[in-house]
Formats: sequence, structure tokens, C-alpha cells
Amino acid sequence: MALTREEYQKWQQTTREYLDRAGIVLTAEESAHIEIADLDLGEFEDTGLALVTYINTERVCAKELVLLPGQTCPQHRHPPVNGEPGKEETFRCRWGEVYLYVEGEPATNPIAQPPSHRRDTYTVWHEIVLRPGDQYTIYPDTWHWFQGGPEGAVVSEFSTRSTDENDLFTDAEIRRMPEVIN
Amino acid sequence: MALTREEYQKWQQTTREYLDRAGIVLTAEESAHIEIADLDLGEFEDTGLALVTYINTERVCAKELVLLPGQTCPQHRHPPVNGEPGKEETFRCRWGEVYLYVEGEPATNPIAQPPSHRRDTYTVWHEIVLRPGDQYTIYPDTWHWFQGGPEGAVVSEFSTRSTDENDLFTDAEIRRMPEVIN
Repeated sequence: MALTREEYQKWQQTTREYLDRAGIVLTAEESAHIEIADLDLGEFEDTGLALVTYINTERVCAKELVLLPGQTCPQHRHPPVNGEPGKEETFRCRWGEVYLYVEGEPATNPIAQPPSHRRDTYTVWHEIVLRPGDQYTIYPDTWHWFQGGPEGAVVSEFSTRSTDENDLFTDAEIRRMPEVIN
Repeated sequence: MALTREEYQKWQQTTREYLDRAGIVLTAEESAHIEIADLDLGEFEDTGLALVTYINTERVCAKELVLLPGQTCPQHRHPPVNGEPGKEETFRCRWGEVYLYVEGEPATNPIAQPPSHRRDTYTVWHEIVLRPGDQYTIYPDTWHWFQGGPEGAVVSEFSTRSTDENDLFTDAEIRRMPEVIN
């Protein structure tokens, strides 16, 4: 476990404050189970994100994602699982600003810069800027990564079933496992 | 067309005000295309709802629903379509209060009362009260209806693909067709 219990709880509290700014209400149980995903790197302010999973059935998943200012969710894709197409997800910015990078024509001067010591694990640079009300759909098996803007971001994710353990990251140091401390 | 252009636009504006109270931001295009569904009854304040559809792909759909105080979305179900299971949907209350009725043990004293002249088309009375942060998942082909509380309601819907034209309503007078006036 890369984060201490105290750190985990501190970031949960920070996440609650972001959601509150976005006008998003959680139940007490959801609030207690906010997931702080540091991807086993121990560099949460640089690389990671916070998540609230509302539902994750066989067919549908909905989450809120919270990014700190300049925090990066590192490059990954959702491959096919058990003969089904991989996860399809739409990101809708609710508050703040998020810079999303996908496969395609690279930006000449990208706004986001990933953590410098991990720079070579970022290979897709087609840039999409999402502000409140903006959204973008990422179809299965597409490399993507994203970063919070100067004030951070709150992003709704609407998707097919989420099986985080099947995600493929470019950075071999990353492990995506739900870390449940509570 | 049951609503005049002026009425349609008036209810679009009312919908914008509800979404604003819930802290939900739309793009200009989404705002211009808010759907006012009166289900061809011409009794919108009693029966109907307003919708913003964010996405509706082959696999995933996400919407915001807005209900006026005491307004009822009438009893319906989502049957299988082309050999696929029907629509699965999760309602998450974001603002206000909504009373949801599904198949199951009927409430002894239900909070909601449907429009009295259509009362006999409401046959499921298992009651779920949703306040901000509360949610409920309706699996395919389950009869359900819902009504806005005293202040109305804003509800996020996370679902599989939406094909409104396949919905089955108990009330034979109802036609569910997207009415696009803009």
C-alpha cells in the first residue's frame, strides 16, 4: 500500500470538497468509500485520481472522477474482455477543466505535461480540452490519458461495465487495483 | 403536436432553471435542444418530463431528466429489442425529490397520486423515495413510473441504449415520440 491511512483519508476529504464545489451530492456510504487511486506509485499528487462509483452492473457503469490541479491519470486502454469489446466511456466535464489526450493528430503545443520522469510512457497526443458541459467518448481499446487543469476537475464518466483490473497501462510500474482501506 | 412552439420554449426555459439550481452545466447546443416530452397528451404539467440526452451510443446512454412539482412520467417498461435485453436504467436524484414506483409490494399510503383521470393505468405501487444522492436501478422489462416532489426534481439517468420508440406504456393514449421543434 503506497498511501498511509492518514493520507488516504486526507485525499478523500479533498475529493469531497471538489464534489461539493461541483454541486454533487453523495450518500454517507458513498462518501466513506471514495476511492483514492494512486496506482501503486506513491506519487498521488502527480499521478492518480479519485473516484466515486455509483453503479457498475453487467451493462452500465457511472462514476465521478476528481483530479487535483495538474494531476494526471496515466496512459491506458480498455482491451476486449472475455470476447466482449472493451470498455466504452464518455467523459463529461462538470467543474474545472480537463485536458484529454487520445490517439490521432498530435497537438503542436500540448497544454498538459505529464510527470517528467514518466514522460516516455506517454505516446498519444491528440488533445481535447473539456470545460463544464463538454464531453468526449472514448471507444474501446483506444490509448488515452488526461490531466486536471489549474483548478483541478470534476468529470462524470458514463460507460459500459468497468473492470479496472483488465486495464492496460503503458507505464509498466503501474498497478491498477482498487485499494480499499476503509 | 400537442404543444405550441411558445409553450415548448417556455418549458425549455423552465428546465434550464431547474438544471441551473442543480449546478448542471449544458453546452449552448444541448440547451437549445432540451426535449419537452408531453407524450402527445397535451397535459404537460400533469404528465410528461423534460430531457437532456448527453449520449446515446450502441451501448451506453446518459441523460438528465427534469420533473416539475407533481409532474408524472407515466407507467411504462422497456421490452427486449431485436433479441437484446431491454433498456436497463439507473435513476440518481441530483436535486429535489422523486417518488418512483415499480413492481413489488405496494405501498400502503403512497406519497404520489397520478393524474386522477388516468389513475387506472397505474398498476405498480412499490414505492422508492429518492433524494439527492439516492439512486435506484430498474432492470429491463419492469413496469415503472415516477413523479416529482413538491419542488420538482433533477434526476440523472445512466442506462444502456435508449430507443424510446420501443417503450411500452400502460396508457393506450400515450405516444412516445421525440418531438423536435427547434
